[in-house]
Amino acid sequence: MKNLTHFRKLEPQPRLSVVGAGPGDPELITLKAIKAIASAQAVLYDALVDTSLLEHCSAHCEKIFVGKKPGESHSQSAINALIVEKAYALGHVVRLKGGDPFVFGRGQEEIEYAKAFGLLTNYIPGISSSYAAAGSADIPLTVRGVNESFWVMTGTKTDGSLTEDLNLGLQSTATLVILMGMNKLGEIAQLCQTYGKGDISAAIIQNGTMANQRIGISTAADLENMAKKEELCNPAIIVIGEVVSHAKPELWKKILKQALL
Amino acid sequence: MKNLTHFRKLEPQPRLSVVGAGPGDPELITLKAIKAIASAQAVLYDALVDTSLLEHCSAHCEKIFVGKKPGESHSQSAINALIVEKAYALGHVVRLKGGDPFVFGRGQEEIEYAKAFGLLTNYIPGISSSYAAAGSADIPLTVRGVNESFWVMTGTKTDGSLTEDLNLGLQSTATLVILMGMNKLGEIAQLCQTYGKGDISAAIIQNGTMANQRIGISTAADLENMAKKEELCNPAIIVIGEVVSHAKPELWKKILKQALL
Repeated sequence: MKNLTHFRKLEPQPRLSVVGAGPGDPELITLKAIKAIASAQAVLYDALVDTSLLEHCSAHCEKIFVGKKPGESHSQSAINALIVEKAYALGHVVRLKGGDPFVFGRGQEEIEYAKAFGLLTNYIPGISSSYAAAGSADIPLTVRGVNESFWVMTGTKTDGSLTEDLNLGLQSTATLVILMGMNKLGEIAQLCQTYGKGDISAAIIQNGTMANQRIGISTAADLENMAKKEELCNPAIIVIGEVVSHAKPELWKKILKQALL
Repeated sequence: MKNLTHFRKLEPQPRLSVVGAGPGDPELITLKAIKAIASAQAVLYDALVDTSLLEHCSAHCEKIFVGKKPGESHSQSAINALIVEKAYALGHVVRLKGGDPFVFGRGQEEIEYAKAFGLLTNYIPGISSSYAAAGSADIPLTVRGVNESFWVMTGTKTDGSLTEDLNLGLQSTATLVILMGMNKLGEIAQLCQTYGKGDISAAIIQNGTMANQRIGISTAADLENMAKKEELCNPAIIVIGEVVSHAKPELWKKILKQALL
């Protein structure tokens, strides 16, 4: 105990590590993230984080759930304030977020706030579901000779409408990855047809990389029907592009044959 | 030794794990990847893989370099054949690749080839430098209220020309991440100006996430000059978008002030 007290006096600097927990499978976290969790005096974690990751915490670490659950929600400003409070009270705070903190993760907002209050800050990337969920369903985002790029977008804008990025994306050969788009499947399917891409292959991957992962494949035009039939829902990503049919050639032939009947 | 022989007889199935080693920092590898490496009888690794990762191999594991180095190169077909040969001779082969195997990694080609020869195959994602290199330079690919997407593209097509995806991307608010584009900086800067985006903020991150990481920031129009001045070269990624100035507000103000002189 004497040594520990001594150490705390030598390192009073409050600090924040914004850490990516990865896409779901708790083994898809990095060594660096585990080291940060193990050295933290407090861990603030989201609903999408597998709680088995908290086993990497030290015995005296405070584990604080800040995700959304029925009847309770933590605003971003409340989380920001809690980070600063805990860092000044305890030392090293880890903010553990599903996926990667900087890929639609608001990690930057937390870092900016913490910096303004004099905290040292650090970013530790996590595997983003934007490509890992597709990959775990045998769909690579790029295939040589097929496409040169992939475009990751949120389906739903802050005002609730469908992103305009999709209009531009559908004019390219890019693989389109749509997050938060499950409530826009009808609009997405319609837009694909408007750009003459109704026949292109598409996939929905639910719970990507996890034991309960589920996948549905169809033409882009049939996305909404397929999701209903397969009972697919959030958390899920939508992938639209030639790469889907290249990854699943046998399945794709069967789908095209059914579509022609 | 008796136990080992017994085990090998029980598990003769040749198999391939295509594994992402992450963006450079050897601590940015996942637990799952380390377990795969530790259980492999052979590891085939690329030039961009930090060789300290081979310390996770078991004592009898064959470690085979298949990257490019002066006077020596391994064709993709030679690598494919070697995977199958080693899997039938030894058992579990790990193909260890920089970044993520399915993000411009040709992982799919190796998996398809291996499957055709009866191997069991498995994909283990890695942290992609496409977002982690930017993040490690304090640049998040998305910021709420600034952009709704990011587009990751190869700057150079197989025929050597600049990707047409950039034309579409410059018409959106997407953060543009360009890999393999360091020999196209002049063309990229010109195209940004053509689309009225010469003044937008841009960054080049060399050796992202590594101890020797270097970063340069400029306007999109000034990318080529900045890279020369800062002596930035491959391996590097180019990031174009408002998010750069939001992440580095003080630095950005200074750059804009210089540009106006």
